[in-house]
Amino acid sequence: MVSLIDASLNPAGDTALFTDRQWLEALLRFEAGLADAQAGAGLIPPTAAAAISGACAAVEMDRAEFIECSRRTGALGIGLVDPLKAYLALHAPEALPYLHWGATTQDAVDTAHALLTKAALSALLEELEAMERALCTLARDHAATPMLARSLMQPAQLTSFGLKCAQSAAAFRRSINQFAVLAPRALCVQLGGAVGNRAALGKQAADVERRLAGALGLWVCGYSWHTQRDAWIRLGMEAAVCAGSMAKLARDWSLMSQFEVGELAEATRGRTSSAMPHKRNPVYCMQAIAQTQAVPGLAAALLGAMAQAHERALGEWQSELTMWAPLWRHVHGAAAALRRAAEGLRINTVRMQAHVDALHEVVFSEACAKAITPVAGQGPAQQAVEGLAAQALAQGVPLSGLLLNWVEAHYGALQAESVAPALARATDQQRAVDGSAACCALLLETLEAPSHTRLEPEMTP
Amino acid sequence: MVSLIDASLNPAGDTALFTDRQWLEALLRFEAGLADAQAGAGLIPPTAAAAISGACAAVEMDRAEFIECSRRTGALGIGLVDPLKAYLALHAPEALPYLHWGATTQDAVDTAHALLTKAALSALLEELEAMERALCTLARDHAATPMLARSLMQPAQLTSFGLKCAQSAAAFRRSINQFAVLAPRALCVQLGGAVGNRAALGKQAADVERRLAGALGLWVCGYSWHTQRDAWIRLGMEAAVCAGSMAKLARDWSLMSQFEVGELAEATRGRTSSAMPHKRNPVYCMQAIAQTQAVPGLAAALLGAMAQAHERALGEWQSELTMWAPLWRHVHGAAAALRRAAEGLRINTVRMQAHVDALHEVVFSEACAKAITPVAGQGPAQQAVEGLAAQALAQGVPLSGLLLNWVEAHYGALQAESVAPALARATDQQRAVDGSAACCALLLETLEAPSHTRLEPEMTP
Amino acid sequence: MVSLIDASLNPAGDTALFTDRQWLEALLRFEAGLADAQAGAGLIPPTAAAAISGACAAVEMDRAEFIECSRRTGALGIGLVDPLKAYLALHAPEALPYLHWGATTQDAVDTAHALLTKAALSALLEELEAMERALCTLARDHAATPMLARSLMQPAQLTSFGLKCAQSAAAFRRSINQFAVLAPRALCVQLGGAVGNRAALGKQAADVERRLAGALGLWVCGYSWHTQRDAWIRLGMEAAVCAGSMAKLARDWSLMSQFEVGELAEATRGRTSSAMPHKRNPVYCMQAIAQTQAVPGLAAALLGAMAQAHERALGEWQSELTMWAPLWRHVHGAAAALRRAAEGLRINTVRMQAHVDALHEVVFSEACAKAITPVAGQGPAQQAVEGLAAQALAQGVPLSGLLLNWVEAHYGALQAESVAPALARATDQQRAVDGSAACCALLLETLEAPSHTRLEPEMTP
Amino acid sequence: MVSLIDASLNPAGDTALFTDRQWLEALLRFEAGLADAQAGAGLIPPTAAAAISGACAAVEMDRAEFIECSRRTGALGIGLVDPLKAYLALHAPEALPYLHWGATTQDAVDTAHALLTKAALSALLEELEAMERALCTLARDHAATPMLARSLMQPAQLTSFGLKCAQSAAAFRRSINQFAVLAPRALCVQLGGAVGNRAALGKQAADVERRLAGALGLWVCGYSWHTQRDAWIRLGMEAAVCAGSMAKLARDWSLMSQFEVGELAEATRGRTSSAMPHKRNPVYCMQAIAQTQAVPGLAAALLGAMAQAHERALGEWQSELTMWAPLWRHVHGAAAALRRAAEGLRINTVRMQAHVDALHEVVFSEACAKAITPVAGQGPAQQAVEGLAAQALAQGVPLSGLLLNWVEAHYGALQAESVAPALARATDQQRAVDGSAACCALLLETLEAPSHTRLEPEMTP
Repeated sequence: MVSLIDASLNPAGDTALFTDRQWLEALLRFEAGLADAQAGAGLIPPTAAAAISGACAAVEMDRAEFIECSRRTGALGIGLVDPLKAYLALHAPEALPYLHWGATTQDAVDTAHALLTKAALSALLEELEAMERALCTLARDHAATPMLARSLMQPAQLTSFGLKCAQSAAAFRRSINQFAVLAPRALCVQLGGAVGNRAALGKQAADVERRLAGALGLWVCGYSWHTQRDAWIRLGMEAAVCAGSMAKLARDWSLMSQFEVGELAEATRGRTSSAMPHKRNPVYCMQAIAQTQAVPGLAAALLGAMAQAHERALGEWQSELTMWAPLWRHVHGAAAALRRAAEGLRINTVRMQAHVDALHEVVFSEACAKAITPVAGQGPAQQAVEGLAAQALAQGVPLSGLLLNWVEAHYGALQAESVAPALARATDQQRAVDGSAACCALLLETLEAPSHTRLEPEMTP
Repeated sequence: MVSLIDASLNPAGDTALFTDRQWLEALLRFEAGLADAQAGAGLIPPTAAAAISGACAAVEMDRAEFIECSRRTGALGIGLVDPLKAYLALHAPEALPYLHWGATTQDAVDTAHALLTKAALSALLEELEAMERALCTLARDHAATPMLARSLMQPAQLTSFGLKCAQSAAAFRRSINQFAVLAPRALCVQLGGAVGNRAALGKQAADVERRLAGALGLWVCGYSWHTQRDAWIRLGMEAAVCAGSMAKLARDWSLMSQFEVGELAEATRGRTSSAMPHKRNPVYCMQAIAQTQAVPGLAAALLGAMAQAHERALGEWQSELTMWAPLWRHVHGAAAALRRAAEGLRINTVRMQAHVDALHEVVFSEACAKAITPVAGQGPAQQAVEGLAAQALAQGVPLSGLLLNWVEAHYGALQAESVAPALARATDQQRAVDGSAACCALLLETLEAPSHTRLEPEMTP
Repeated sequence: MVSLIDASLNPAGDTALFTDRQWLEALLRFEAGLADAQAGAGLIPPTAAAAISGACAAVEMDRAEFIECSRRTGALGIGLVDPLKAYLALHAPEALPYLHWGATTQDAVDTAHALLTKAALSALLEELEAMERALCTLARDHAATPMLARSLMQPAQLTSFGLKCAQSAAAFRRSINQFAVLAPRALCVQLGGAVGNRAALGKQAADVERRLAGALGLWVCGYSWHTQRDAWIRLGMEAAVCAGSMAKLARDWSLMSQFEVGELAEATRGRTSSAMPHKRNPVYCMQAIAQTQAVPGLAAALLGAMAQAHERALGEWQSELTMWAPLWRHVHGAAAALRRAAEGLRINTVRMQAHVDALHEVVFSEACAKAITPVAGQGPAQQAVEGLAAQALAQGVPLSGLLLNWVEAHYGALQAESVAPALARATDQQRAVDGSAACCALLLETLEAPSHTRLEPEMTP
Repeated sequence: MVSLIDASLNPAGDTALFTDRQWLEALLRFEAGLADAQAGAGLIPPTAAAAISGACAAVEMDRAEFIECSRRTGALGIGLVDPLKAYLALHAPEALPYLHWGATTQDAVDTAHALLTKAALSALLEELEAMERALCTLARDHAATPMLARSLMQPAQLTSFGLKCAQSAAAFRRSINQFAVLAPRALCVQLGGAVGNRAALGKQAADVERRLAGALGLWVCGYSWHTQRDAWIRLGMEAAVCAGSMAKLARDWSLMSQFEVGELAEATRGRTSSAMPHKRNPVYCMQAIAQTQAVPGLAAALLGAMAQAHERALGEWQSELTMWAPLWRHVHGAAAALRRAAEGLRINTVRMQAHVDALHEVVFSEACAKAITPVAGQGPAQQAVEGLAAQALAQGVPLSGLLLNWVEAHYGALQAESVAPALARATDQQRAVDGSAACCALLLETLEAPSHTRLEPEMTP
């Protein structure tokens, strides 16, 4: 369960991920599923499996007791198994020996975690795919909408708003694709027994694993990942990379939303400040940044926890457990915020154009220098452009005009005439935007088929 | 509220830190305290302050509504102020204009956070001081208990178990002292108004700040720390450094608790494994490591969130809010685990001595080389020791005997006789332990006066 | 260039990665390659390209001047372009306008970084593959070598040393495979021009990109990744995950190398301590841990630097540049250390067996409890095992014998006789090890075909 | 030595910190100082000390040999001691036994590190103090220069540019003060001998420590800090906190330097882009951000490395060594960049005022709502302000006028007349700025006495 503050800053209000209830249910699903799988593999009597499944359905797990027991014993599994034992002792004592048979705490907890992570990843993918769609729409609509490209936070040249959106959409698509590849290797049943060698299950180990995975909707990796956490952490790192792409988008949009820039605004909502009625805060951007900010630190901690000693870690595994859910909640929360922002975004193309115009063609300085180079040579051309760019901004006149005068003054009217068409092309805004529009179209092509990732292992008959 | 998993891995079961209830109460305490302070300073009518205090006492804050409102508006303060407004509108509409007057969301939230952090730090200090006491007792009892000192995880020379305990105790004392210095600079009322210049409070700002701090039991720093977070983060970094000292202790004890080492054991508890009845896991060490593992990542995220733009951050401040409580909970949980471990620790001095004996004096190799250097010269002495150390271990005979034979064989019986007393001194275990005992005593002296830190600002009359 | 300390702690002494010389050469290769590619695409005169290539071959880049220029201008590219310009002005002024044409600083620097990273990754893969081979050999040789499996750093049950080696080998294989997938998406030419829309190159952009990539031995991604860093960072995160797998291995081996455990030793080297002639430090493990320790923090910083504003970042990109090389050096250094450790590892199977024996069958407690459950019922069986396990350890007698006596005492001789075969099976060490051997064989199967990753893009004719 | 890229992005070109040369010299200073101190304490013959000092002065340490030896032995100290031994063997063999006597690798390396860190901290303090002075000058000059305060990156109310500068100056002063407190506890001689109990030095340990510290200009802490790194790491964490304050300043200034905002500019420098002649990049801000970005990750890694096993760590200590220099270089580089930026900063008060004016008094919305509350009641007042604020912005007319009309329309002319003076006060820009000016003055008072921290231990006679 998340805290008041965490819940308040996460826009994904309607999605419950990694709740205590889900944890307890997932643990019970493991125990029931394990017994069923073992019965299916002929390892335990079907009646015992039925009794255990029944117990899992009937028993009331008490949160406080589970916690107290885990604290006392240091083993999360005992708090799970003891209530089931108590139930079976009353209702089906003959099934008792078969409960949790051949399994260990980490089997139950890791498998439950995979189940909860599958749900979290599904929720995340839904947000990412919706965001990608919204960004693609923006990209198509504004493929040729001119705006300033900015480098080092200063006006550089021209680009189009659509290209920016397509670039982000493509980044999210790469994450979606990567998630689809990594999930089947990470969202796997854990079934290693006490020390990861499946000793108790013997030759039936693989069969039990397959049946259990099938029942739970998880994948099979064929080995115990008790202390080899790479596939699992790899999935988490993709979430962290995805958060990085979101942080980039949130930064851009928050910069463009500044009052003095005003090129973007989130959809209007009512009051956004306790004291200042006029405030129009980019709340989704704020929420997205609030969510992504914690992710790199969590990623580092998860990587650091990989040094798990021997066949089960003393602390590192347990620590991983506590950091995993926050990672996914933060990433999901950021996606939820930016998806909502993208779907309601207001684009102010007038301001975009005004900012371009306010630069008086100095954003074409590179092209202008090239245009007059045939006449003036590269060095003088560059120097002229540098000097006249400052003048263009100071006096508010177009750079090309100043350059034409300069060429005329230094090289004569004929030469000025000769470079005039090149200067006109160099400062042709449409031409400049065409390049961005083409890049945008190229990216949109790769995004054509809408991604719709389904996190379901293929059923093996 | 912490999750099932977090609660299960944190031994501090009886301490509630940063709970939702405490959050809501602290926010209400801020609003009531602010109104009282402003009335005291003559800024608002005393009747209004009384009505506001009454409202804060009477109003029922609804968790779900607070969250929903925060999500919608992006401002945590609105969810706090709106229910109070509604209450006042019904019961004391004339007080309405004075509610939250001159304050902003961040004033309420940061001040509330300081209140909750004061409680968390108090709880942490209690654990640290109890742990320090337990470690000092161990240090006194075992000041001269010989054991192997290990470097690069290999036997090095002799030390005493008491010195190890005193070294950790001294580290915790340094943290305790540092907390006492930093707390009054960090646990301060936040009162900056909308943009941190206290504009609305005018010349009464300092008076209101002082009164509010007095009422809440917080300190006064005299400036707004809306976006200058250094004093606040500095306190958090001390918690992180303290966690580092705990991680060191937990690592040492977990190494000494290995079955093959067996020099230490935590107090017996019952079953500690769901599958293996014989397991005797060092559960407190596991819990301490599970808690400290996340701390460096959180510290990094908090440091990273210091880059807060202008007069209130877009996301970074809010992110800091979400990472602060986990930091303190982890550090407190680790202290709770190690305090319990220290208080119940079983020391196996027989095993300690056995490990010393098993080294057959090779741990005195440095001193032995010096003992025979007058006769053999430094180079040959060192080489002889290297070679014979291996032999001592292989054959299970004392290094000094082998060296004596070697000197005799190479330099004659007289020379052997002449180095014999030096070799005896070099391999005198008591002498070796005396050095550690002396260091231990020195540290214990600095720890003599038991620390008892009280986190209370001095009341100014 | 790495510092004295960094170089001293990194065993990969013979491999120079990301040196200043390589940097300057890679930057020159970009400029020459770009001109050639543009000539090939018909954008610039072949003579100009030849002159530029000539200049890149002839010019002496001065390290100090490059640095001074970068500091002064904030643009790494100017320090690269200016010496080339000076050279061309003297030797081929007509080529001047075509130098660095349509490119920007980040194109040159990112492409050069991809070149250096390709070399670093190749060196890393070589170490990883050699380590994998060494681990597979150990796994095959010790597939059925019994040793204690340890959970929470305490004896748990039996496993085999071979299984542990196979598990690590499999983890490294997964990293190798992942690198092979990610490299072609990350080690790409950067060619976006001033703002990432390839405006200057127009319709020839893709052709130039393809030619340039071909000349440099890099891949083509078809888009500018100026500020969308996900594919690049994803490669870095795989290095970080791989470091996590190495940290796990180093931790295990350092624990097994403890004098009191003594199951492993690194190949003998001479003196390993300045003061203690007898020290036999596990130097490779130390180096591996020294290298991996920094990786999670670097990973976090790289993730945090993804929030790059607009079309080129103000600081974040530049910061990424400074953290990238240390990441790869650390990961490569750790692999170099562990590969050397693996190749020379001494296995002490006698000590492994001795530790098993010292447990007097209590590691079979789970199986023993099951063996007597048919007679005693689950609860009493478990309790008997818990109690008698302690007795077995204290008295140094086998658990099965004690249990047999207990069954006889409580349930009679006949019952004791009936459980005797089950108890014998439960405590059959061979049977216990067979499970690990089978798991080991399964993993080795997946590793059968030796991996030999070649980092070369397929040449398109 | 730093890499080409690191050097290129760090403006502190003239300061060499933690160079290889300095490392080797500091290690030699330790050995010479130790011998002198031991002679002074009567532990070794003065002639031996003189010979050792002579050797330290005469010997040529070879970088490559040092590295090779460290790699081979895993002990940094052997590479230091061996050349000295060779020298002494030739020139003063009788001094050989006294070289490095009673010391261990870590004593030499930690003490050398303290020496280099003292130099780095001195250089950092110089930059911080110069920056503080520059900020105080800006604060005094612009104490009452009105500008928009911005929260969540949106216009909030008015503040003064001077207050912003004073707030940063005060944060840096707090760091300077904290450094002054922490340095004497961290920049201490390390003298613990092989296992930190100073066994070899016996009762003279404290005397030797004091003499050695005096000779080296370091402090005395009286205990070995081989594996208790808290005081050392605490100093590093202060550097990290200080970096956080710098990141905040760099973020503010980079936002204010945006072309569309234009309130600030760094002093003009020439070309700042390889492709775009018109670019005027805020290079110092870029450098500061490039430097601070890596700091939180390094801080996390240093905290994580505190879990050092037993009496010397297997990897964690060594890893700390590699991360320490980058931390200080980054923090120093950021300070160097921002100091330069502060000293040359161009303030555009016209743009600041223009942005205030462009808000048409809506930044006074909080005060306006209060002004009309007596007539309209709080709720309607707030709603009117919200609605009319939007109108004021849309139509470009002052909010107070619209509100006056609204009051007249709804409550009559008399009421409008009655609130007019309050509305005038509410929108009085001078009054609004006065609050900030007062806060600024208050902070400047605390900064009055210029800080000039000298890092020199008091000499004890």
